[in-house]
Formats: sequence, structure tokens, C-alpha cells
Amino acid sequence: MPHITLNTSEPGIRGLFRFRPETALPLNALVEALLCGPGTLTRGERELIAAYVSGLNECRYCYSAHAAYAAAQLPEGMTLVEQVHDDVDSAPVSAKMRALLDVAGAVQRGGREVTEDLVTAARAEGATDVEIHDTVLIAAAFCMFNRYVDGLATVLPDDPDFYTDRAQRIAAHGYLGVLQQEVIRE
Amino acid sequence: MPHITLNTSEPGIRGLFRFRPETALPLNALVEALLCGPGTLTRGERELIAAYVSGLNECRYCYSAHAAYAAAQLPEGMTLVEQVHDDVDSAPVSAKMRALLDVAGAVQRGGREVTEDLVTAARAEGATDVEIHDTVLIAAAFCMFNRYVDGLATVLPDDPDFYTDRAQRIAAHGYLGVLQQEVIRE
Repeated sequence: MPHITLNTSEPGIRGLFRFRPETALPLNALVEALLCGPGTLTRGERELIAAYVSGLNECRYCYSAHAAYAAAQLPEGMTLVEQVHDDVDSAPVSAKMRALLDVAGAVQRGGREVTEDLVTAARAEGATDVEIHDTVLIAAAFCMFNRYVDGLATVLPDDPDFYTDRAQRIAAHGYLGVLQQEVIRE
Repeated sequence: MPHITLNTSEPGIRGLFRFRPETALPLNALVEALLCGPGTLTRGERELIAAYVSGLNECRYCYSAHAAYAAAQLPEGMTLVEQVHDDVDSAPVSAKMRALLDVAGAVQRGGREVTEDLVTAARAEGATDVEIHDTVLIAAAFCMFNRYVDGLATVLPDDPDFYTDRAQRIAAHGYLGVLQQEVIRE
């Protein structure tokens, strides 16, 4: 049961968005820019970083959601997402993606864990400054979202298709599009 | 030296805002809603939570900045901010504020650290659902900001008056107002 009385039974962060639309809008604008905006990392790769960090933080709702969103947008689908979650070192990702996941894992432990060596390794595999920036901010942002969702003890969905249904909608309409359809109907 | 090449020598998160205005806008809209928007916690109390969490994460830039912003907006000034930073248990804050700071400290350790007992204690001291929600999200947001600032190894300001100068501008114009004056001149 959530720690606060929500005005909806919607699971996970969705119930929090409806409770506090004033913060829902900037939170969704942030993930829209980071995970859906123009960029040289694919949307699937960016969702993979979000899922990986959510797994490290053991946030079941965020991991399940972003694993589904990544799977829907990666050619390798859920198999790759689960390989990264289970053992990032042996997962069949590109050398650049592995280096960026290592940066993301460091961010999850703490900001000062991101060493010059980790950044140099990512750059040696072709990562650009914007890709390094966005990897750090995606990882940092999910350290926020994971704490927000679990810190208020939100509930998990009952429907096993919840995450895959949303994955299609997020892929098609983005985060702001789905938020505007569901919460902020203006 | 920052891990990436910024297009400015501005310290801390300000250099990151100028590097990536696409994410600067939602990040500032988030703190505007959380720290400056209408609410039953004063702006000084909300900045105190931000400073406290930044201190726990040992983020020197964010702690110094939000300590100054809190001090500028709290009747007790910097003395109280430093007492909370040094020993929250003995700091002369209200019972409600102490309970909310305990919730924020739990969020800093991890989302599932926020126990029903901590929330019940805050509610017993008069904290509302919105205050508990906002405390969790402020604490979670600074777990993001602290990692963002330190994860990219941003520099500290040379000017000792940097934080107090900004504190006056943030108090007067809010985060979005200052951002629009400095970065997103439209």
C-alpha cells in the first residue's frame, strides 16, 4: 500500500503523476528529452541504460517498465535486456555501449565513482561528449525515479500485460504524449 | 576539470545547463515546482531538505549552493543549516521538520529505506500527504542532481560570494527566472 493516499489506484509512478501533476510535467519533459529526443544513441539504447540502472537500484516497477520499453525498441528485444541485467560484462552489446553502461553503473553507486578512466574508456570506443553527458544524466535521473517510486511504496500492476502495453504507447507517442493523454488533459 | 568539454567555464551545474539546454529546462522546471511553487513547507524549509541530502551525498557544489539558498530564506539563517548538516538529531528544528528530514535521509540511502514507521512519525507531527510526497521527491531529485554534478566532475566556483549572490537571485526570481536570464534567452 502506498505511504500516502493517492487519488487513483494506478500502479507505480502513474499514481504519483496523477497525485501531483505540477511535478509530473517536468519529470516527463525530462525523460522525453533524455530518452526520446534527438540523439546518436538509439531510443532502445537509452532505455537499456534506464533499465540497467533501475535493476541495480532493485526498483521492480521501473526495471520492469523500462526493460519493456527497451525491448520494444531494440532489435535484440528482451533477451538482450535480461542479459545486461543478469551480467553486464558478458552481455553481447557493442564495446561503446558496454563502456557507457559501466559509466552508468558508477553513477548509480555515486557521482564521484565516475572516474577519468571510465570516461576515457568510453571515449576510446567512440562515445561523444553528448553521449557521455546523457548517459550520466539518464543514470542519475533513474536514481531519482527509483527512489521516488519505492520511497512512496507505490504498488505494482496486477495486469501482466501492463508494461508491454505501455511500451507500445511510449514508443509511439513518447512520455509527454502519453502523459497528456492520461493525466494532463488540457 | 570536467569529464566533458563544456562550452563555458561556469562552475557546477550551470556549465551543464549551458551545454545541454534541452535538459536544463525540465530540470529547472522541476526544482521550480518543488522548491519555489505553492506549498505548506516554506521555501527555506524545502531548500534545507535539498541542502541536507546534498550534504549526505557529499556533493560540495550542491550542498554549498542550497545551503546558501536555504540560509537566505530561513529566519535562522546559515546557523541552522550547518546544525542540520552537522547533526540532524540535535539541530533545533520543529518536530515535523525533523521527521521529514529523517524521511529525506532514508530516501538518500535508497527508496525502500523509507519505512511505514518513518512516514507514520512524520504524520504524527502534522505532516500532510503532499508534504511527505514533496519531501521524498526533493530528496530523490537531489540524489539525481548530486550525481549529475559530480558524475561529470564539474568545477567549484573560485568566487567566495558565488553562492550568496545566487541565493539572492534564486530567492527573487526562482530557478526558471534565473535560467531564462542566463541560459535560455528567447
